[in-house]
Amino acid sequence: MSRVGTGIAIAATGGHHGPVRTIDWTDGAVELIDQTLLPGELSVRRVGSLEALIADIQRLAVRGAPALGVAGGFGVALLAGSGAPAAEVRAGAARLRAARPTAVNLAWGVDRVLARLDEGPDAVLAEALTIRDEDLAACVAMGARGAGLVRELVDATRGRDRRVRVMTVCNTGGLAAVERGTALGVVQTLFERGELEMAYPLETRPLLQGARLTAWELAVMGAPYRLLVDSAGPYLLARGIADVVLIGADRIAANGDTANKVGSYALALGARAAGVPFLVIAPESTVDAATASGEVIEIEDRGSAEVLGFAGVRVAPQGAQAVNPAFDVTPASLITAIVTDARVIRCDRGERPA
Amino acid sequence: MSRVGTGIAIAATGGHHGPVRTIDWTDGAVELIDQTLLPGELSVRRVGSLEALIADIQRLAVRGAPALGVAGGFGVALLAGSGAPAAEVRAGAARLRAARPTAVNLAWGVDRVLARLDEGPDAVLAEALTIRDEDLAACVAMGARGAGLVRELVDATRGRDRRVRVMTVCNTGGLAAVERGTALGVVQTLFERGELEMAYPLETRPLLQGARLTAWELAVMGAPYRLLVDSAGPYLLARGIADVVLIGADRIAANGDTANKVGSYALALGARAAGVPFLVIAPESTVDAATASGEVIEIEDRGSAEVLGFAGVRVAPQGAQAVNPAFDVTPASLITAIVTDARVIRCDRGERPA
Repeated sequence: MSRVGTGIAIAATGGHHGPVRTIDWTDGAVELIDQTLLPGELSVRRVGSLEALIADIQRLAVRGAPALGVAGGFGVALLAGSGAPAAEVRAGAARLRAARPTAVNLAWGVDRVLARLDEGPDAVLAEALTIRDEDLAACVAMGARGAGLVRELVDATRGRDRRVRVMTVCNTGGLAAVERGTALGVVQTLFERGELEMAYPLETRPLLQGARLTAWELAVMGAPYRLLVDSAGPYLLARGIADVVLIGADRIAANGDTANKVGSYALALGARAAGVPFLVIAPESTVDAATASGEVIEIEDRGSAEVLGFAGVRVAPQGAQAVNPAFDVTPASLITAIVTDARVIRCDRGERPA
Repeated sequence: MSRVGTGIAIAATGGHHGPVRTIDWTDGAVELIDQTLLPGELSVRRVGSLEALIADIQRLAVRGAPALGVAGGFGVALLAGSGAPAAEVRAGAARLRAARPTAVNLAWGVDRVLARLDEGPDAVLAEALTIRDEDLAACVAMGARGAGLVRELVDATRGRDRRVRVMTVCNTGGLAAVERGTALGVVQTLFERGELEMAYPLETRPLLQGARLTAWELAVMGAPYRLLVDSAGPYLLARGIADVVLIGADRIAANGDTANKVGSYALALGARAAGVPFLVIAPESTVDAATASGEVIEIEDRGSAEVLGFAGVRVAPQGAQAVNPAFDVTPASLITAIVTDARVIRCDRGERPA
């Protein structure tokens, strides 16, 4: 049970007290919150092998682009630290890299740590820990920079000194990173500054990361929120319920097209129609300069099963099948700005990430 | 157990065989399929009192704008037939009328039958049965007219003689009417003509009418379909998955603005962005000339509980609350055409319903 860090306060869940990191390295193994059990149970798993880590990534026990970057690094460190020969480490790294195809951070974390393999396992682990520490700093920076931009945009559209109403999708909070999140990190910063009026998380079918994880994080923070079904988001934007939409990203193409949780594109259409700013909050590691545009981003189809039921309850008739894209691509033309730990990219002014 | 009609074939559900009407009048009482139990169980409830009918309407045992019109008529007939004095019938009719505020058909059915009250209970019942019979004919007419327009639009955009891929939301099939539906009635007609390539129903959170009811109807028909989570609809339209979007309506304003199940507006934005025709299929009784535009349509908020979980399984954290608009309003500017049992209104050519 990790107790380090300053991220998610756990007091509200009973049993555990004090903050815990979403993913960390402790005594030679990975420790991660099993997010499939939230919000009912906060449980930290100890993961000692690469294969176990890959399985946990695929079943979404750990998810979120920044956290997957850290997991990628730790996975290579696990295998290198086991004394496996270099060829075996490289083969394992390739399997890890492919565990989820859309999030660029996973491959980025794997590759970055693997580049230190010739220097030995200590160097590999050091690089993985550096990724973790950089994520901690990056989320603080994104929170501050994002909150500043939100303030500026809302001042311009709704008037100065108004508290902000934010809509978001999926989970982009501490549970998607190490301690603080990306888009939800901005919400958290606004809340800490006394500038948050209301957060409207979408529940995010099929796996309900919004209802399970984002709602839980907002509740733990003590921030005001109201949950929405996904399809209500665009309509409630039209009715003026929110001042800004904030999303994370799994991959940002060179031209600014952004792959993120399915539903992001519909929200972007809704924001555009309502004249509401639409911001992407993600670390620089999510920018994939090698991907020219969204058209070539591979979108993971996670199969029918997730869609045919709801939280373990079978809903659809026997024999039903589904199309289940886990992500979608929002074109840069619908994005007001991309906020990273290093810069603000004003897509609405023709700026592009790479 | 009703066995009349030619609508939904029940053989696939076991136990029952032959078609059954969604709502009907049998031996002095209302019989209706309890749609809260589908697709797991096909159960026909016998409803002998107005209060029981109002409760069934509010818990969505019977739902769908055309079916609610029939229910409105039958409800007045139940009370008038019980020998209640006229004042009591009018008071009960007012409660029935208000059971669900957005669907105009319910109030329309109540008012139409109530207008015959002075002629005695036989006239009241006769009027209610006429509404039922008109629905049967209207759905056949909408199916044919809608399928013809779909053919014309797809011929123009995708090439002649191509089978059609249709996206739809909520349930607008036989279960939303008496025997055949509105938007799903068009899908059924296309299927019967051998012109349907694939139907893509959205699951339709929070109550999953698409996953439970539309998928069940398509399975019973034997039509090909793939289920989608709601938020995937706009994105998959952008990816070219469907040739046309078909929705029903709960109220159509004089200018063509259309209230329908929440998610319709997001689909309309997606269809417009993708250049896909967006059609509303509804009987003339859904056109509310007294409502000038969508801005004044009351949208029912059904409260938090439906959003926080499903089928008794709690998802969101304790203390969570939700905003839960049951419907949204799609502006006429996003609608290609409205197809009724009497006419085609080409909104894209500036035509308006009233």
